[in-house]
Amino acid sequence: MTQDSLALQAIRRKLIGKSLTYDEIFAVMDAISHEKLSPILTTYFAASGYSKGFTNEEIYYLTKAMIETGDKLQFKGIVADKHSIGGVPGTRTTLLVIPIVASAGFLIPKSSSRAITTPGGTGDDMEVLAPVTFTKKQIYRIVEKTNACIVWGGSVDIAPADDDLIKVEEPLMFESFDKILVSIMAKKIAFGSNHIVIDLPYGSHMKVQRKVDAEHLKGKFEYLAQRFKVTLQVYLHETTQPAGRGVGPLLETREALKVLEQTPDRPLDLEEKGLTLAGMLLDLCLKDSPKKLQDQVKNEFGDGKKWAQYILSSGHALKKMREIIGAQGGNPAIISDDLHPGQY
Amino acid sequence: MTQDSLALQAIRRKLIGKSLTYDEIFAVMDAISHEKLSPILTTYFAASGYSKGFTNEEIYYLTKAMIETGDKLQFKGIVADKHSIGGVPGTRTTLLVIPIVASAGFLIPKSSSRAITTPGGTGDDMEVLAPVTFTKKQIYRIVEKTNACIVWGGSVDIAPADDDLIKVEEPLMFESFDKILVSIMAKKIAFGSNHIVIDLPYGSHMKVQRKVDAEHLKGKFEYLAQRFKVTLQVYLHETTQPAGRGVGPLLETREALKVLEQTPDRPLDLEEKGLTLAGMLLDLCLKDSPKKLQDQVKNEFGDGKKWAQYILSSGHALKKMREIIGAQGGNPAIISDDLHPGQY
Repeated sequence: MTQDSLALQAIRRKLIGKSLTYDEIFAVMDAISHEKLSPILTTYFAASGYSKGFTNEEIYYLTKAMIETGDKLQFKGIVADKHSIGGVPGTRTTLLVIPIVASAGFLIPKSSSRAITTPGGTGDDMEVLAPVTFTKKQIYRIVEKTNACIVWGGSVDIAPADDDLIKVEEPLMFESFDKILVSIMAKKIAFGSNHIVIDLPYGSHMKVQRKVDAEHLKGKFEYLAQRFKVTLQVYLHETTQPAGRGVGPLLETREALKVLEQTPDRPLDLEEKGLTLAGMLLDLCLKDSPKKLQDQVKNEFGDGKKWAQYILSSGHALKKMREIIGAQGGNPAIISDDLHPGQY
Repeated sequence: MTQDSLALQAIRRKLIGKSLTYDEIFAVMDAISHEKLSPILTTYFAASGYSKGFTNEEIYYLTKAMIETGDKLQFKGIVADKHSIGGVPGTRTTLLVIPIVASAGFLIPKSSSRAITTPGGTGDDMEVLAPVTFTKKQIYRIVEKTNACIVWGGSVDIAPADDDLIKVEEPLMFESFDKILVSIMAKKIAFGSNHIVIDLPYGSHMKVQRKVDAEHLKGKFEYLAQRFKVTLQVYLHETTQPAGRGVGPLLETREALKVLEQTPDRPLDLEEKGLTLAGMLLDLCLKDSPKKLQDQVKNEFGDGKKWAQYILSSGHALKKMREIIGAQGGNPAIISDDLHPGQY
């Protein structure tokens, strides 16, 4: 049987509720990623997961096949990342977590996911400060120079089947949790991350509304992490209000810069949230770090969050952010006051 | 809530396995029939029925909504029809059943379904003899003149949502029995039929392969007939070979004409099959006919099949077929020997 007819057969089998093998799922992802599957057939595949859902095994296969049918990045040693599952705008902690963790000495190459149901992604925020579209080679160079990058995920061919699936999911205005999971994990793993914090807020205005669903999703993230042999922690918390006061790339970026600059009028809730996530990620990275570093951090700061606090308040995070902006071709001297609403 | 958002909500609800109300299904059919639903969203709806299927109530709603969102034909009294659920070409009995039943005095306006998985429909066969595309008004005139017509279903706006659903079902190359059922019944009821014989062969080369599936489908046809208050009989039979020897519109039409002409070299298996179906349909119509006609047929012929046999062997069926060909603008003097392969 050819790959194409195997893909079609797999879609039909999944539609009537059968479980799929890795070969079948690979055939579907391969056909999608090489644009050999029409939008109609891609839609049937997207639809096939709603009723019975995918088994954990199938979710692993899906994620793996998405990674294998696209490009991959590879780094040495500990590679950190954090991902926030949003739902409301104004909850951007990326521009805080990245420079803090990079300043601590860990690699943290960040590919921002495309906005699906929210008006803008982190890539939009970073683009206020610097270009975000780079080749794989350029990304390696930026990360080598600064320990970090904040780039548009679409600029490299990472998990390309995911983008096509998102396209046919958009008109339905209805995401399944399994697809959020697969989409995030495929992009993280393909980007080479092996120490990951998932920020999973739940609440009536969030993407995940009920605690029980959030806990279920948390379990699936942990399952996938174990299958891919990566270290992952899910930060589950109830949220009623977005952090920060700004909505839209320009205001969000200005808020984040104010925190990095430690201005008196900075949004303290956003700072607190950024420190919590950065602290978690630092603790996660520390566990696999040399004993010497572990002891040093413990003695000097106490824990990851206090380490993050020091990096932020000492101005190291701001300095690192300026390095990253510069390496990505932006103006490293930019300050929050330069960003005026209506400028874009 | 607007009709459009009701349609979108209904699709999402069905995808996760909920049952839909008539209002929800009507909203979806209405959106599809007015081309307000994109092919992607139409595909999600088509896909939503595969896993759990539709309840009998939903199948009735679907059929009713398909009828109500399109044009309808109305006739007085008994209106006969037969439909063969094929799977293999060369099983065309329509060109025999229609003139026999029309010659017996019953109305039998026939809209041929579009070919889905078979290479050609009955409309293609009839088109060898006469035009098949007519307006509603022209169809009424042809039926008034001859008791019958054999027209292309697509020429009137009958159950238009069905056509759009078929379009997104084609790439999957996989029909659900529920959709075959709904599609056939919506078109029959919208065309005004109230006495219907469904020819349902099953076998390894047929659309329905297993007896258990055929019996299940038979039960659903009977359920819908009862809901729509029409008289319906399903002729369930195992088939291994197609009837007749010709494949393709020209050869199939020539075979049927040979039977009508009662030539010595006519295909006797096709004749037998046509007589069986015509006989069943005549028996069905007779049950709701005046006592006087019932007695007359009983005394003169015995039963419907023998009546059909008489109509065919006496040349009345051929005469009626020529009337229909003439009324539809074809050459009523055509004979089977006029049809040579390669002519089209």
